[in-house]
Amino acid sequence: MNWKDYLAQHQATHLEEFRTFLSIPSISAQPAHAEDVRRAAAWLAERFRRAGFAQAQVMPTAGHPVVYAEHTPFPGKPTVLYYGHYDVQPADNPERWDTPPFQPTVVDGRIVARGASDMKGQVMAFLLAAEALIQTGTLAVNLKVLIEGEEEISSPSLPGFIQAHRELLRSDYIINGDSGQLSETTPLLALGVRGICALEFDLVGPSHDLHSGTWGGQVQNPLHAIAELVASLHSPDGRVAVAGFYDEVEPLSPTLREWYKKIPWDEEEAKRKLGVDEFFGEEGYTPWERMTGRPTLEVNGMWGGYTGPGTMTVIPSSAHAKITCRLVPHQNPEKIVALVKAHLEAHCPKGVRLAVHVREAGAPAFRMAPDHPGCQAAKEVLTELYGVPPVETMFGGSVPILSTLKALLGHDPVSFGFGLEDERIHSPNEFFRLSSFEKGKQGYAMLLGRLAR
Amino acid sequence: MNWKDYLAQHQATHLEEFRTFLSIPSISAQPAHAEDVRRAAAWLAERFRRAGFAQAQVMPTAGHPVVYAEHTPFPGKPTVLYYGHYDVQPADNPERWDTPPFQPTVVDGRIVARGASDMKGQVMAFLLAAEALIQTGTLAVNLKVLIEGEEEISSPSLPGFIQAHRELLRSDYIINGDSGQLSETTPLLALGVRGICALEFDLVGPSHDLHSGTWGGQVQNPLHAIAELVASLHSPDGRVAVAGFYDEVEPLSPTLREWYKKIPWDEEEAKRKLGVDEFFGEEGYTPWERMTGRPTLEVNGMWGGYTGPGTMTVIPSSAHAKITCRLVPHQNPEKIVALVKAHLEAHCPKGVRLAVHVREAGAPAFRMAPDHPGCQAAKEVLTELYGVPPVETMFGGSVPILSTLKALLGHDPVSFGFGLEDERIHSPNEFFRLSSFEKGKQGYAMLLGRLAR
Repeated sequence: MNWKDYLAQHQATHLEEFRTFLSIPSISAQPAHAEDVRRAAAWLAERFRRAGFAQAQVMPTAGHPVVYAEHTPFPGKPTVLYYGHYDVQPADNPERWDTPPFQPTVVDGRIVARGASDMKGQVMAFLLAAEALIQTGTLAVNLKVLIEGEEEISSPSLPGFIQAHRELLRSDYIINGDSGQLSETTPLLALGVRGICALEFDLVGPSHDLHSGTWGGQVQNPLHAIAELVASLHSPDGRVAVAGFYDEVEPLSPTLREWYKKIPWDEEEAKRKLGVDEFFGEEGYTPWERMTGRPTLEVNGMWGGYTGPGTMTVIPSSAHAKITCRLVPHQNPEKIVALVKAHLEAHCPKGVRLAVHVREAGAPAFRMAPDHPGCQAAKEVLTELYGVPPVETMFGGSVPILSTLKALLGHDPVSFGFGLEDERIHSPNEFFRLSSFEKGKQGYAMLLGRLAR
Repeated sequence: MNWKDYLAQHQATHLEEFRTFLSIPSISAQPAHAEDVRRAAAWLAERFRRAGFAQAQVMPTAGHPVVYAEHTPFPGKPTVLYYGHYDVQPADNPERWDTPPFQPTVVDGRIVARGASDMKGQVMAFLLAAEALIQTGTLAVNLKVLIEGEEEISSPSLPGFIQAHRELLRSDYIINGDSGQLSETTPLLALGVRGICALEFDLVGPSHDLHSGTWGGQVQNPLHAIAELVASLHSPDGRVAVAGFYDEVEPLSPTLREWYKKIPWDEEEAKRKLGVDEFFGEEGYTPWERMTGRPTLEVNGMWGGYTGPGTMTVIPSSAHAKITCRLVPHQNPEKIVALVKAHLEAHCPKGVRLAVHVREAGAPAFRMAPDHPGCQAAKEVLTELYGVPPVETMFGGSVPILSTLKALLGHDPVSFGFGLEDERIHSPNEFFRLSSFEKGKQGYAMLLGRLAR
């Protein structure tokens, strides 16, 4: 039997298994779900063993565990290391989901669940492709698999894990599965991602909540102060107003700007999908340039005071905000955190005390050379799979592991995944197309075949 | 037996009953507590019957019920109507309470519980004073009692209730128990309160939460927009920046400013109590002038995006804020709401849609004449009880019922209560001094005696 028939024969079972995987709420950010994260890891390791991998195990880290599997029966043949993650984003506000986030539901050719697109669907597609090759005796490369449980909290334990297991993870190619395609019909070759850094801050006013009837207008209200401080982070033209923020950012070269112009973009279609009336961003740049070529600073959460139903006449003791920045090449995450912190300190309004908490070490941006042999193989497979060559571009998101893998293992990871940008990742009603799931299985099987040569 | 001995003899039992009353979480703002609100009303009506009132009942309104009690055995004698409320503020964030908010705990002569000071302690003090007079045969006025369950949500049903029961509520004096004293040793005669109006608004950007890595810097982030909009509500000198906000506000007269100067105020002591390093408010006014003579606009809650532990890289679909304004004489609550709404509309940033919700009808400020006979009686009682005459002033908070009672029942309510301003009302660890509880019982008994003449 060839691998295609194998996949076709087991399609229904494989979908059921995908649903089982999705039903485990492996939310790495929330301590209450630590046991679910462990359960997802155990399920996945067991499933890799069942796929025919010679070994698969759950390995401890300082945080959530890593799933490591290998099947390396071909001495002299190349070794491919697959990277992915089995943790998912939180699914707060379940009332904003049309179906429960951890009860996967198939509607109109889409499977709706937290983690469906980001990225349990991709991990399953790779696993099933490898299984099909192993079970039909058509595998011709050595396989290693590294699937972490902390990607959604910026992989705090992974660098240490990789450093401690460099030999184990030695390979000729690295595939990063946490990636996507441009549309259902147009493939994409991702040549880079932006970096990231994150921080959180508190503004503390009175030592306890005060009655706003008595004390309003007499003490600084931390909510007024945080509004003023957050408003100071951007200038009216959409630029980040933090001093020094753009210092290391190189202007986009004319060649790059020409290259960006070739990426298809339908503004009206995008507005409709996002549900916005207008776009708003740094003046003088196209959407793709803003998304991948320019850095950003975004407030991801802000809160303070009474947020329940009705009225509560309170001046809260404190107010809080969470911030992430996306970075382009040459920006150093630690330096950017220091600049943002300095801005907050310099602009902190009277009458409140500032406390800044750095929430993750951060990661620099990552770029790879388009002539890398892994990229060439990916390009050929995508061209065959979609009937058109892939659009080559960068991504706006961050995959901190890419720079980590490159730094620690010495070669460039090739991004090869099947998510699409409308799949509401990090948002209610996340979904994954079943057509992408099928393309993914086939794509990985073809890529592993191609890398064996 | 005289009423003093009666109160002394039953002191321990009365404290136990106060604890029982406090243990009912009668939070009017939260629908989940509607049954608790009803339970508190039933408990209170039953307790008034037991005190010796000829009748006491729970009467329905469009919202939470009213407790009405009466004992009018003296034709030809004056009738005193007591006003209070049995509902309490929410007690969210129980982790910020040293003891559970609805498990009243006595520590160092203070009873700690939500509603202890605002105002179940005051209601109990009045009830027990009336009971002592009735049970010792020393009552000489007619009593009517009106205790509502919606004060903390701005009394939406009370005006309708009063209008429907004007005859029942006819009286010669009205006592408003929702008031306080200046300190443990200095009494206060409250001659007025500020008005209030409240609104809430949403800023809505994309139709769903977006990944901030992909879409950050391309669409307006509702959190950035709300920061900008909230920051626009005040100018750097602490004034409200809403056009027209001060139009009807009369300058403080030289006489009034002289009068304000006589009110004792220890700035260092106040800073220490509030836990602030500095005061911050409208320039050119003293603390008491700011608190009672000038209007304010305060944000009581603001929220949007991810507020849980860790990082979530999201651009939220929407952001929200709750606002209340405190008003001085001549400001019209409806007009102020309209002005704030117009400001929000005029200053709404690009890329988000504004929706304003008016949360309550509002109430104008209330002032009464210091030569009112009820005020004179209160002054005499307070002078006797504290050994010094009361400081005569206004309050910064709002008791919308005062203007309602005056408008619907035709005469001025006299404020006579025993709360102190450091008792953390509307805040975690609210408490009431047991010494104030005792003073309250005696004060009400003395006042009822005085009003009988």
